[in-house]
Amino acid sequence: MLLDLRSDTVTRPTAAMRQAMANADVGDDVYGEDPTVNALEALVADMFGHEAALFTPSGSMANQIALQLLVAPGDELLLDSEAHVVSHEVGAAAAIGGISTRTWPSPPRGRVAADLVSDYVRPAAGFHTVATRAIAVENTHNRGGGTVQALDELRGLRELTGAAGLGLHCDGARIWNASVASGVSFAEYGALFDTMSVCLSKGLGAPVGSLVIASRDRIARAKVLRKRMGGGMRQAGILAAAGVHALDQHLARLADDHERAAALAAALEPYGVTDASTVETNIVLLRVPRIAELAAAAAEQGVFISVMGPTSGRLLTHLDVDDAKLKHAIAVLTGSLESHGL
Amino acid sequence: MLLDLRSDTVTRPTAAMRQAMANADVGDDVYGEDPTVNALEALVADMFGHEAALFTPSGSMANQIALQLLVAPGDELLLDSEAHVVSHEVGAAAAIGGISTRTWPSPPRGRVAADLVSDYVRPAAGFHTVATRAIAVENTHNRGGGTVQALDELRGLRELTGAAGLGLHCDGARIWNASVASGVSFAEYGALFDTMSVCLSKGLGAPVGSLVIASRDRIARAKVLRKRMGGGMRQAGILAAAGVHALDQHLARLADDHERAAALAAALEPYGVTDASTVETNIVLLRVPRIAELAAAAAEQGVFISVMGPTSGRLLTHLDVDDAKLKHAIAVLTGSLESHGL
Amino acid sequence: MLLDLRSDTVTRPTAAMRQAMANADVGDDVYGEDPTVNALEALVADMFGHEAALFTPSGSMANQIALQLLVAPGDELLLDSEAHVVSHEVGAAAAIGGISTRTWPSPPRGRVAADLVSDYVRPAAGFHTVATRAIAVENTHNRGGGTVQALDELRGLRELTGAAGLGLHCDGARIWNASVASGVSFAEYGALFDTMSVCLSKGLGAPVGSLVIASRDRIARAKVLRKRMGGGMRQAGILAAAGVHALDQHLARLADDHERAAALAAALEPYGVTDASTVETNIVLLRVPRIAELAAAAAEQGVFISVMGPTSGRLLTHLDVDDAKLKHAIAVLTGSLESHGL
Amino acid sequence: MLLDLRSDTVTRPTAAMRQAMANADVGDDVYGEDPTVNALEALVADMFGHEAALFTPSGSMANQIALQLLVAPGDELLLDSEAHVVSHEVGAAAAIGGISTRTWPSPPRGRVAADLVSDYVRPAAGFHTVATRAIAVENTHNRGGGTVQALDELRGLRELTGAAGLGLHCDGARIWNASVASGVSFAEYGALFDTMSVCLSKGLGAPVGSLVIASRDRIARAKVLRKRMGGGMRQAGILAAAGVHALDQHLARLADDHERAAALAAALEPYGVTDASTVETNIVLLRVPRIAELAAAAAEQGVFISVMGPTSGRLLTHLDVDDAKLKHAIAVLTGSLESHGL
Repeated sequence: MLLDLRSDTVTRPTAAMRQAMANADVGDDVYGEDPTVNALEALVADMFGHEAALFTPSGSMANQIALQLLVAPGDELLLDSEAHVVSHEVGAAAAIGGISTRTWPSPPRGRVAADLVSDYVRPAAGFHTVATRAIAVENTHNRGGGTVQALDELRGLRELTGAAGLGLHCDGARIWNASVASGVSFAEYGALFDTMSVCLSKGLGAPVGSLVIASRDRIARAKVLRKRMGGGMRQAGILAAAGVHALDQHLARLADDHERAAALAAALEPYGVTDASTVETNIVLLRVPRIAELAAAAAEQGVFISVMGPTSGRLLTHLDVDDAKLKHAIAVLTGSLESHGL
Repeated sequence: MLLDLRSDTVTRPTAAMRQAMANADVGDDVYGEDPTVNALEALVADMFGHEAALFTPSGSMANQIALQLLVAPGDELLLDSEAHVVSHEVGAAAAIGGISTRTWPSPPRGRVAADLVSDYVRPAAGFHTVATRAIAVENTHNRGGGTVQALDELRGLRELTGAAGLGLHCDGARIWNASVASGVSFAEYGALFDTMSVCLSKGLGAPVGSLVIASRDRIARAKVLRKRMGGGMRQAGILAAAGVHALDQHLARLADDHERAAALAAALEPYGVTDASTVETNIVLLRVPRIAELAAAAAEQGVFISVMGPTSGRLLTHLDVDDAKLKHAIAVLTGSLESHGL
Repeated sequence: MLLDLRSDTVTRPTAAMRQAMANADVGDDVYGEDPTVNALEALVADMFGHEAALFTPSGSMANQIALQLLVAPGDELLLDSEAHVVSHEVGAAAAIGGISTRTWPSPPRGRVAADLVSDYVRPAAGFHTVATRAIAVENTHNRGGGTVQALDELRGLRELTGAAGLGLHCDGARIWNASVASGVSFAEYGALFDTMSVCLSKGLGAPVGSLVIASRDRIARAKVLRKRMGGGMRQAGILAAAGVHALDQHLARLADDHERAAALAAALEPYGVTDASTVETNIVLLRVPRIAELAAAAAEQGVFISVMGPTSGRLLTHLDVDDAKLKHAIAVLTGSLESHGL
Repeated sequence: MLLDLRSDTVTRPTAAMRQAMANADVGDDVYGEDPTVNALEALVADMFGHEAALFTPSGSMANQIALQLLVAPGDELLLDSEAHVVSHEVGAAAAIGGISTRTWPSPPRGRVAADLVSDYVRPAAGFHTVATRAIAVENTHNRGGGTVQALDELRGLRELTGAAGLGLHCDGARIWNASVASGVSFAEYGALFDTMSVCLSKGLGAPVGSLVIASRDRIARAKVLRKRMGGGMRQAGILAAAGVHALDQHLARLADDHERAAALAAALEPYGVTDASTVETNIVLLRVPRIAELAAAAAEQGVFISVMGPTSGRLLTHLDVDDAKLKHAIAVLTGSLESHGL
């Protein structure tokens, strides 16, 4: 039995999802004529209460397009030092968008606090000071361990940015998990942001695809930026069909992933390698002295975990982890911890 | 009967291709673990006699990655003024790669001539002059009307660039058509270039996907650039499976597209709107006084053509155009030309 | 006797100019408080009938700021393949401005023709085609040999760009020579362009400095771009004072440079190395079989010429070349041509 | 009596400095032939124990060139959130260099601590994580109030960067003040950094000019970057002469500026608007409830101060502030504080 807990991006499409893709009604999306892509874009825009959305081949592209919509070259974006968009997207904001970034130190578990952020905002002040133009937040916060951002703090950011005339972007790669865990609706989240990215190929289990969500005018400009970045695809409806299917079939079940992550953390906590109380969604952070050794031992038994530093790692539950596999994973991991004296 | 002659990008996947996608063995390609993507990359690299290849969501991304591999920011790329990479990729070479471009005037039908190009090359000469670092050619030449570049001229370019230490890139979006039409093998073409892009979603009929072809070292760097541009996809094997299928099933049949394009041009030539002798592959260029009127008349009867300027347009044959549809298209277009006095 | 004919940039400030610099009234120009800079900017803007001007440390910076004012990243600039801004400014338009360039082949002597240029213009046409946003011309044309552009053709370009909503930039590094040679006033030239660059450190003999000329709004934005590029200087009035002095004292005398260039060309023409009929201003192009040998022989006798290719070179007359020196240069060059059998 | 305490950039050249400029031996520095520029570059490189240096028109250009030498587009620079290079150089690092920045929160008074910084360093780890390539520090720290960085912490940064293979840059616009205040020699500072920028137009009183300091190879590349950014100047020896003069005449006297700043702070401290114990060099930070009112009142009496926020401001001592003027400034400021009840 193989079991991949490294990420929720590793899920393979289900038989039903494959069927949906095989049957998809498609057209040339560069011409705007793919009915399934158009349907998916309308569906997702509507879920979040925005005017429009745009399908992209990756979450990175969705994020980077959104940031370019909000911040001109040489202007400033503020964000968490551990944010995916500044730390894991290969420097695209600067290299492609020319966007200057200042970061606030990532708070414990990545929990954003509007008060902390406000200290960093710099108003447009002639050409002596770089002007802050937008703030980005991540929900759930990946590096923080799948943290659901507090709605009050997000509202605080909306007030702050509204008052200062700044844009507010949400990297919502796992906004699905945030909503399922918190009960905050997609529309409530959507109302807070100028732009959002959402990803279909993480917990939702689609093979490929993300979306940028924004106003109609911004999405019109986003199409130009997507083509410049090389994201114009032809019969993308094949992929969009998986997204439509996933939104219909795989949203509610994210609660199962969260329960399994909690169970996994609870089982490992006695070994001192994780803190079960911090598990809010589908991510379990590990702190293990020689984690590479643990990873190797587990891998030999077909269980794969993510090593992130000399003593840190990560486990994610997802569509391909059912109760039986979870039980197996727990057995393998606890066994390895014990046998290796970790 | 609907018939779309605007481009060969509009083809819809066949039933067999859909089946191949539905059955694809997939993994997480960002981790390099998608077996179908890996197989496609190996297959295509091998066809062109190169070490490696990289799957991308679009031909534009494949081209732009290749150009960034060959030319550093502020250095110079020489190319045809009508080349797709400088005229139809939203300025990406400059905006993303910082690549300075000088263009030679597009020769009749886009036929490149090594002698013409050599006049434009500037050696690295300190910081006073921008140094030419690479040359790009397009084969077949899209705006020139599907022109197959002369092998001798391509060899001349290889000699020129070899002697001057320059890179040579081939935008091979329709290299398949060039090979089928000319009998020059993919390996012969491949041997001439440092980098190539090839596209699966034009005449080959796959829904999405292109590849960059280059040395192993360059492809390793290309992976970084692809991720920066937002082209890292997860279970991309779904798409790659269509590519594998297309290379197996749809290559030889491109000869049919070429015959049909010739037949189409022959039927229209008496109206003075095209020159059948210039049709080498699957593209028929039109010159019609009021082409928008022709396009509108044909569209009313379900035949769609591409309007490119006030008096210019384009027809392409492809996988979705069989003999019966071709006959219908000819009837509609000649009828419209006659009834509108064009 | 040392005599440097490589460029008109090599002139050393005169005693009077040095005195003007030593006495300059200065302030902090980053704060906009340098009275001499402000006076120079107002003077030059007024000469060309524009609202405003901005002092920069180099002609390259003036050009590149102007181009960034007219063309957004990813949009297109059209220009002569031999234009200074695309061939001799280290790729800045692409590397810094993200500006996509297409070039028309440099006509004989660099003479621009509006008809030739108009074939290259592409209207904004959605995201499929890169939109032409501006055209740049160079007057006098440096690589063409100091060619004065025909006023009718410049007017043709103004009509063309006006009708198409494009910007028109003049690289006027040697616009002074053009005006003196043609009798066309600075205001006449100024009326034709949206942005201009003019240079004080070529024929005018100032040590350092150029200006961008444009509307008030554009110059306000130019200040931001200048600071980003690192061109914000403090007590720049020291340099501006030389510019004010040069405009007062050294403009009319450019006619002498032109006469001397003509005399130089006439003396060399019998040797078949230049065509005196092409000398319009202060540049004499040379075509000599082994020019490096000529340059070395002349340098041994204290006369320095510019070698531009294996058989091509350039001589420029300027403030530091009087009649006696000219006579000496002619003797040295003709002697070297004879003794080396060139 | 007018007295400008807004910045030390406002100083006007002295009569002797003007004379030095008027007498400067100059040449064309774009050709590398200006003897005074060459002498200044050699002098400064030697002072800091580096191989080479390069003259630039501004400190921003010197910084940005240095950063581009150390960090490729898309790679990462770490620095203080209040650092001049990320906050006051118009986003050039991202917009021109494509450099991705993460910032650590500016410590009290801008005092860098190697331990704090080390938490932010990310090793090169494939294409999933942006790789940290360099760290920048500012000495003295401008926004922190002219803070002299602790030598031990700088050494700690050198160890950290050395071990991790990172570059270390010093924004040394006011390194002169740091050395004079701390007694640490320029060579000691120089030994710690891969690249430095130093500025001649702040406390040293030259009108224009900064330098990049680095290895010979890096400076060769810096010349290309300087030309691309528009910093290639011709007879720049006029400006360099002021720099040579300033290094000879104005270095030691910086101690006077520091004493006067201390005296100024001591005089204002009783009003609760500054903390004299934090004044280490020539900058006095103010915290005043309605500082705009104070600034206006002082300006009416010819004393100008810098307003930086609703309740914050700055005073700088410099070459144009002697004891008499200082006394006057104190009288005006304390009088205004009293009369306005601040």
